[in-house]
Amino acid sequence: MDVASMISVEDARAHVLAGLVPTAVEIVPLAEAAGRVTAADIVSRLTHPPQDVSAMDGYAVRAADADPRVVVGAAPAGHPWAGTMAEGQALRLFTGSVVPDGADAVVLQEDVDREGDRIVVRETTTVGQHIRRAGQDFAAGQVLVAAGHLLSPRQIGLVAAGNHAWVPVHRRPMVAILATGDEIVLPGDPVPSGGIVSSNSHALAGLVRACGGVPMMLPIAADDRATIAAGAAAAQGCDLLVTTGGASVGDHDLVADALSEQGLALDFWKIAMRPGKPLMHGRIGRLPLLGLPGNPVSAYICAVLFLKPAIERLSGLPGAASQPVSAVLTVGLKANDHRADHLRCTLTEADGVLMATPFKRQDSGMMRTLAAADGVILRAPHAPAVAAGETVSVLRLDAMGL
Amino acid sequence: MDVASMISVEDARAHVLAGLVPTAVEIVPLAEAAGRVTAADIVSRLTHPPQDVSAMDGYAVRAADADPRVVVGAAPAGHPWAGTMAEGQALRLFTGSVVPDGADAVVLQEDVDREGDRIVVRETTTVGQHIRRAGQDFAAGQVLVAAGHLLSPRQIGLVAAGNHAWVPVHRRPMVAILATGDEIVLPGDPVPSGGIVSSNSHALAGLVRACGGVPMMLPIAADDRATIAAGAAAAQGCDLLVTTGGASVGDHDLVADALSEQGLALDFWKIAMRPGKPLMHGRIGRLPLLGLPGNPVSAYICAVLFLKPAIERLSGLPGAASQPVSAVLTVGLKANDHRADHLRCTLTEADGVLMATPFKRQDSGMMRTLAAADGVILRAPHAPAVAAGETVSVLRLDAMGL
Repeated sequence: MDVASMISVEDARAHVLAGLVPTAVEIVPLAEAAGRVTAADIVSRLTHPPQDVSAMDGYAVRAADADPRVVVGAAPAGHPWAGTMAEGQALRLFTGSVVPDGADAVVLQEDVDREGDRIVVRETTTVGQHIRRAGQDFAAGQVLVAAGHLLSPRQIGLVAAGNHAWVPVHRRPMVAILATGDEIVLPGDPVPSGGIVSSNSHALAGLVRACGGVPMMLPIAADDRATIAAGAAAAQGCDLLVTTGGASVGDHDLVADALSEQGLALDFWKIAMRPGKPLMHGRIGRLPLLGLPGNPVSAYICAVLFLKPAIERLSGLPGAASQPVSAVLTVGLKANDHRADHLRCTLTEADGVLMATPFKRQDSGMMRTLAAADGVILRAPHAPAVAAGETVSVLRLDAMGL
Repeated sequence: MDVASMISVEDARAHVLAGLVPTAVEIVPLAEAAGRVTAADIVSRLTHPPQDVSAMDGYAVRAADADPRVVVGAAPAGHPWAGTMAEGQALRLFTGSVVPDGADAVVLQEDVDREGDRIVVRETTTVGQHIRRAGQDFAAGQVLVAAGHLLSPRQIGLVAAGNHAWVPVHRRPMVAILATGDEIVLPGDPVPSGGIVSSNSHALAGLVRACGGVPMMLPIAADDRATIAAGAAAAQGCDLLVTTGGASVGDHDLVADALSEQGLALDFWKIAMRPGKPLMHGRIGRLPLLGLPGNPVSAYICAVLFLKPAIERLSGLPGAASQPVSAVLTVGLKANDHRADHLRCTLTEADGVLMATPFKRQDSGMMRTLAAADGVILRAPHAPAVAAGETVSVLRLDAMGL
């Protein structure tokens, strides 16, 4: 193994991200904007509250007046009272009702004794109490959500309140997925001797969607140059082409060969990591290419490390390494070699402390442990041995919805 | 305030969940099953690997044989070699290639010197090395994903590998959303004096979708019984009706009034929490009802606490309180009163420690701080004062995608 020719996970991610620009802008209805990334500042078109409003159910009064006060009417929310309140008057209000001109306080209905149209207030009244001032929440012209933000449902509510029915967002990146291999078939199709069912495309399609992209699964490419080249041609117009398989160090590096005939400019293709060393990165004309290993565990871990931030960058976000959390090891780990390691583990919580237990077998052929894992323990190159009870960094695949 | 008539957040959630059963089963294509909940055990239809296969690129050999060995052919993945290996023979293999009968080990290509069709192995060879045994990952008949699990993209890959093109899952719960109020209008529609733009329906629709449900936004209901009753009638056939507004303690408790004429069996309607006390729960015939406050901040916090687990329960998951994390306060908090409090806060990380800073103004009229919050600090009823530097529990809205 030629260590010098391998690059680090961090350098590889920086290379992948450097070549990507956000997709163009589209306008989507508010209801479909959650989970999308704003392509412009969203500026409020109105002031909220639009006028001074009551924060509670009660009565508008003039704080300095003496009791009893005469109730001159009622103003439900949406039905402002047109007059100006004079001395000794009160107006029945509800949460959100406009406070009438002349009034300077709201008293709570539970602090009031009412008989007929007269009220007596049992508590002291201070000017401004229980009134939400016009513009207290936001003013017309104020930025509600800045450009480049992933819209949460809460922010959708705020954008609605700012009177927007449409939101400019980055188009969802279209990610073509090309699985290669003579031995793989689609689920449900006849499985020949020595054949296996394709799992990479399906797991990756789910990951692409979970990261905000739109997956486009290309037909499985057999191990020949023409078919692989045709797949790459079908991906032109997409924002990213992801291949799996055919990128090993053996004789069958067909993907690289086939795509160099298509004009592939290869950037790098070996990363000092486990699982997943043979990762290929480059560009065919304007189409960025990420070549993942054929091994399902390797392919998925590489997708979490490289494809996820790539989709985020294409979506208008910065795109960065996922943030690990700290967890306490339940068993010791020996010192790591020169490759960054990613150990599938289960996570449990004891007294608010997260505990990580790596699977005993980390064989990259074990999809079952990948599917059962709650996360992966990150082990830096040359990390020293750690004992049970010590702390490690863990990527929580479960919490990331991956 | 009549404390005795209010129930706790935990009791309220238990009430809400107790009345809900999972939706019926539908069959969806594998590609659409990510994020759905399995309605049956998914059992593998085949064994993986199907035969002993090579874990690396190299040569199949008989461990006990002497060098040099004669290479009798090559067997790329998907193209098994039909013969039986005799003494002194070797077969070129690649990752995933079937190990031929007669061979008992795989040697790595980088440990081999090859001249013509002869190889010499530079390392010692042990029986079984670099071979993935048939069924090492999973066997036909084995449960790959149990019923009642939310399918991650990784599990989609495993289900694909088990040769399933279709997955039985619970139907996405259909959640009708009925916003009420004379003062609210849809974004983009003309805003009358004293009117505000509806934000609740839009934020809640996003939350419903993020939690796995399908939102159905009903037209805004004016504050009159007939319109509200018509909205509830339109929701029949849905799995849940969520209303906002009209559930305060004022004169305008129209929703409860209007729906009792429709046969609403009211369960409870006041919770000892802030923001969001007036939460209504019941059933109109077979349709469960969750009546959220009209205030956007209160409505959203209540939705996180009650609507999210309700949608999960309807989707086939247990449905439980979201798990808080621990964070260190940057400022002190005074003792809490009898209501569970939910303080909007920002979160930062310093040396791997999560730090929580509550917004100074917690006014439930401030949508802007709800949208800007990273989470809410949970304060139990009667929680004592806590000083800066002490630890509190935080619901991470950001990490939950809410």
